Amino acid sequence: MEQPEFKPKDPAYVARVQDSFALQGAMATIGAQLVQVQPGRVTIELAWAAALSQQHGFLHAGMVATALDSACGYAGFTLMPADAGVLTIEFKINLLAPAKGQRFRMVGQVIKPGRTVTVTEGRAYAIDNGHEKLVATMGATLMTITGREDVKN
Amino acid sequence: MEQPEFKPKDPAYVARVQDSFALQGAMATIGAQLVQVQPGRVTIELAWAAALSQQHGFLHAGMVATALDSACGYAGFTLMPADAGVLTIEFKINLLAPAKGQRFRMVGQVIKPGRTVTVTEGRAYAIDNGHEKLVATMGATLMTITGREDVKN
Amino acid sequence: MEQPEFKPKDPAYVARVQDSFALQGAMATIGAQLVQVQPGRVTIELAWAAALSQQHGFLHAGMVATALDSACGYAGFTLMPADAGVLTIEFKINLLAPAKGQRFRMVGQVIKPGRTVTVTEGRAYAIDNGHEKLVATMGATLMTITGREDVKN
Amino acid sequence: MEQPEFKPKDPAYVARVQDSFALQGAMATIGAQLVQVQPGRVTIELAWAAALSQQHGFLHAGMVATALDSACGYAGFTLMPADAGVLTIEFKINLLAPAKGQRFRMVGQVIKPGRTVTVTEGRAYAIDNGHEKLVATMGATLMTITGREDVKN
Repeated sequence: MEQPEFKPKDPAYVARVQDSFALQGAMATIGAQLVQVQPGRVTIELAWAAALSQQHGFLHAGMVATALDSACGYAGFTLMPADAGVLTIEFKINLLAPAKGQRFRMVGQVIKPGRTVTVTEGRAYAIDNGHEKLVATMGATLMTITGREDVKN
Repeated sequence: MEQPEFKPKDPAYVARVQDSFALQGAMATIGAQLVQVQPGRVTIELAWAAALSQQHGFLHAGMVATALDSACGYAGFTLMPADAGVLTIEFKINLLAPAKGQRFRMVGQVIKPGRTVTVTEGRAYAIDNGHEKLVATMGATLMTITGREDVKN
Repeated sequence: MEQPEFKPKDPAYVARVQDSFALQGAMATIGAQLVQVQPGRVTIELAWAAALSQQHGFLHAGMVATALDSACGYAGFTLMPADAGVLTIEFKINLLAPAKGQRFRMVGQVIKPGRTVTVTEGRAYAIDNGHEKLVATMGATLMTITGREDVKN
Repeated sequence: MEQPEFKPKDPAYVARVQDSFALQGAMATIGAQLVQVQPGRVTIELAWAAALSQQHGFLHAGMVATALDSACGYAGFTLMPADAGVLTIEFKINLLAPAKGQRFRMVGQVIKPGRTVTVTEGRAYAIDNGHEKLVATMGATLMTITGREDVKN
């Protein structure tokens, strides 16, 4: 994925992403870890677990989407103002191959930041016996929310 | 959502969906229950839990997607032959409103069944203090898999 | 498609849609006609033409999308304030069957109107020797634009 | 966009794309030209025309989609067997900015080829007074069709 250069509006963007991530019960449930936070790009990793599987034992498409949506959402969040919250408007995911592996890496990347609407893309990689494979791609559209007490991160 | 009439190829389609659903670790993790299985239509319900939340305390978009993807996938599965497995090719979800509520109902509906490719739609409703609200819509494309030992349900 | 009841903010919404539609060179090029404008719902029809075909002689998926995107966009536009313009943020189209027919009907329907973001759905029907068939479904997200001189309808 | 290396199954893939492209009435109507055909990657260009515009004078989102869908479809087609036809299952397009310019370049790229299903991505660039800008991204899923007389290219 191309990585355009972006300049964060809030110099404390890394801490802001970490704080918000820590509030997500869903991230703890799936065992996701925030491994890299850069301007416009966020990487999340998680391990396979039976508790996250679908009927064939692969990582459930929804769980791939959960981690990838967070990676995309936080990628957008790095470029938002200090008082903004982020919500996903929509995302689409293509499952290229069964998510078969011991570990998974999700990368979210901003393609086009905007005052109101931000467009991002995501890539999910499965690491299976040391071999890494692209298993899903995502396109996610985010909305910058300001002035709402219940959506402030 | 319109509900076209479909005739299942496998008369044991209800048991087949139930058996496959029971194999999904992800469904147990999110506390999802299969509440209705009809030809081309499946309804799943789950309760809110902190373990499924995003940073504002709403149900995480990915968890909405996880349950909705399963509803859509099993809706398609009801119409597939007895020896087939189902995989999601892609889905898109629109988050219409924050998934705020105590309980959630996900309905998956086949729009167009096909030998290889099946197109479905999903609706997610949040039940908040007895008031029901449409919070997400999904469009999911499924693939019928035959002759693969690792994808047979 | 369900048709929720909506109340337009601008009582002159029909004329406003007609005027904007008349400005679209693309609608004239594809021979599209505005056949119905209701609050939150717009229907567009067009005839098959070799000039709109893909390599197998069916209506090109992009031309189906062009008409369907306009139906969805104007469905949303019926509910926007008098001084607003509309832009498509994104759309997804599923091609359920080849668009084979002499005539095509595209219906756009608002699912969730919003101050900034409006979510719509579309259905494309092919009329082939008097038999009507659903050939495509669309989900489109629109943005209400205000205060921009170059986007005011 | 990353450009993975692919090996075409049919050495005559360039001629096959050109022949199919020439059959598309829609491509002539929008003035699209095939400017580059590589294994898994196809570039199409077109000029702005009033006949392709929406109400604000920008290139209609549907016309952007028409050219981009063809670029993605033919990118996939370069990797298909000699006797196969290609159909689009679905595509999603994000309109990042109004398609304002004198000329447009659409690039389609295969991300994951498959025996039945191929996943591609597209990028649309507007060239406005010599300045090039990314205005749209697409994700398109294609199907390889064999053994059907009406879909053989």
